[in-house]
Amino acid sequence: MKLVRSYAYLKKDLNTIESALESTVIAEHKILHEASLQLLKAGGKRLRPVFALLASKFGNASNERVTNVASTLELIHMASLVHDDVIDNSNLRRGKPTVKAKWDNRIAMFSGDFIFARALERFTTVEDKKAHEVLSHTMIELTLGEIEQIKDKHNFDQNLRTYLRRIKRKTALLISSSCQLGAIAGRCSPQIEKALFRYGYFIGMSYQIIDDILDFTATEAQLGKPAGSDLLQGNITLPVFYAIENSELKQDLIHYFHKNNNDEISFSELLNRIKESNAIERSRELSNQYLQKAYDSLAYVPECKAKDTLLDIANYIGARQI
Amino acid sequence: MKLVRSYAYLKKDLNTIESALESTVIAEHKILHEASLQLLKAGGKRLRPVFALLASKFGNASNERVTNVASTLELIHMASLVHDDVIDNSNLRRGKPTVKAKWDNRIAMFSGDFIFARALERFTTVEDKKAHEVLSHTMIELTLGEIEQIKDKHNFDQNLRTYLRRIKRKTALLISSSCQLGAIAGRCSPQIEKALFRYGYFIGMSYQIIDDILDFTATEAQLGKPAGSDLLQGNITLPVFYAIENSELKQDLIHYFHKNNNDEISFSELLNRIKESNAIERSRELSNQYLQKAYDSLAYVPECKAKDTLLDIANYIGARQI
Repeated sequence: MKLVRSYAYLKKDLNTIESALESTVIAEHKILHEASLQLLKAGGKRLRPVFALLASKFGNASNERVTNVASTLELIHMASLVHDDVIDNSNLRRGKPTVKAKWDNRIAMFSGDFIFARALERFTTVEDKKAHEVLSHTMIELTLGEIEQIKDKHNFDQNLRTYLRRIKRKTALLISSSCQLGAIAGRCSPQIEKALFRYGYFIGMSYQIIDDILDFTATEAQLGKPAGSDLLQGNITLPVFYAIENSELKQDLIHYFHKNNNDEISFSELLNRIKESNAIERSRELSNQYLQKAYDSLAYVPECKAKDTLLDIANYIGARQI
Repeated sequence: MKLVRSYAYLKKDLNTIESALESTVIAEHKILHEASLQLLKAGGKRLRPVFALLASKFGNASNERVTNVASTLELIHMASLVHDDVIDNSNLRRGKPTVKAKWDNRIAMFSGDFIFARALERFTTVEDKKAHEVLSHTMIELTLGEIEQIKDKHNFDQNLRTYLRRIKRKTALLISSSCQLGAIAGRCSPQIEKALFRYGYFIGMSYQIIDDILDFTATEAQLGKPAGSDLLQGNITLPVFYAIENSELKQDLIHYFHKNNNDEISFSELLNRIKESNAIERSRELSNQYLQKAYDSLAYVPECKAKDTLLDIANYIGARQI
């Protein structure tokens, strides 16, 4: 299933957003310009702009207002990815070298700051106090999510709630805010704005869980980085939570990460044991529960093409293999 | 001369801002909370809030509006300091360990992001499009200044213009924006807003030049970090620009930083040669020229207590030894 076919009719709007993104990251500094452009050209699904755009269709948004909201959201997402790669010490993203790998951590830090600042500059065109509140709240939560991720690395004794709070902060809130800000840009009713916010939140949770599953089940070619990268970097994701209910596997993982004699058990053996447990299946179940809530959230929003597309996206996320 | 005595009458306003700052950086995360609070408690002169406050007095600002503007500015300054210490690899600031020294670079990066996001949250209460434009523009320039600083490290062939542009971006614009945003918060006339912006810009340039001079002339006890730290980190500041007009000194500096056989000339010998040249005196002269322009900018703003204090600050900056 090709997701893009489902929103092919948004192509013109999305092209406008793409141009806005490109013009926003233009910088007179060669390194900064190259770093930002590399990130932009690396692509990605532009999911956040798509959500904002679709949400705005439930109301009556000017093109310019929606473009500004949508591109702000993508820029904040991009900036957080650059800072994220610094923590994770990642050298590849979507199969391409990261900013920190191609230049260094300091350049990555300030490229992120630059893109954040440019995002805010674009957002000044949105004259709605609530929109600014939503955005700054999302940014605060995003940062808290990052800090939590650092703190909880290699901690096999955290509970499931910490994981869910972390993915809420790191992923779901930016998606729910994309829907909400699109709705605000479209001047939708408070009921529709709330329904779209809820849809975005549940889709975001489901999306991140699937991402965390794919980190185990997809191939390096599909991921653009080695399988199991999350775990290797010490990020404990949902499949690991379920897998370490098996106390022997838990001990072996702790042993692998906290002792120096790593050669007794290989990382690929640990990966296989997680994949062969029921952890992947149970993770899919939880993802599906969130997905169901996303569908439910749309029950009372009016039927329209945008609603069909939001449902298509939910189907796509439920079925996606990469 | 004690600067604080000159604005003792602002004590109540400044206490309100201090409380706002403290309540803003409260975080449920222990590390984040401690890192932010450490930064806050390390003090500093709260110059940006003072400028915003004074500028607002030329108009008619509600206390709340000014407090929000003033604390946003101080928070952005704080956040940029944290990120700055990551680049400069600084372990001490104002005699206390930096966030990156006490924790690590990743924590420093996200503490900065967190404080930025909190600053923006506070700024959402300011409902004035122009104010948001000024702030985002300042943040973009600040980041460009940081990137330039990285790029131009250890580059003894940059020209004076690059230095002036860098300190404009890194220091002067945030101070001029503090004056301008204070004026906007006070709903001052465009003429007064512009005059205060110009005053802030020139004071900021002068202030940074003096800072760069003190890095050579003050003692470690006064600075809270070793003298000559800027140069040691490869930052070429105004005294160095003047000093390297002596081509022998320039060669020796290049030799010291770019060759491995550093033992022929000691760093302290290089410092002494810079101090004994006329570089310090010429730097003071340029600082004084900016200071004069700051005085001139205030020529046509109405006489009042706030104006007297702005003039006092200019006198203080001209005379300051630390």
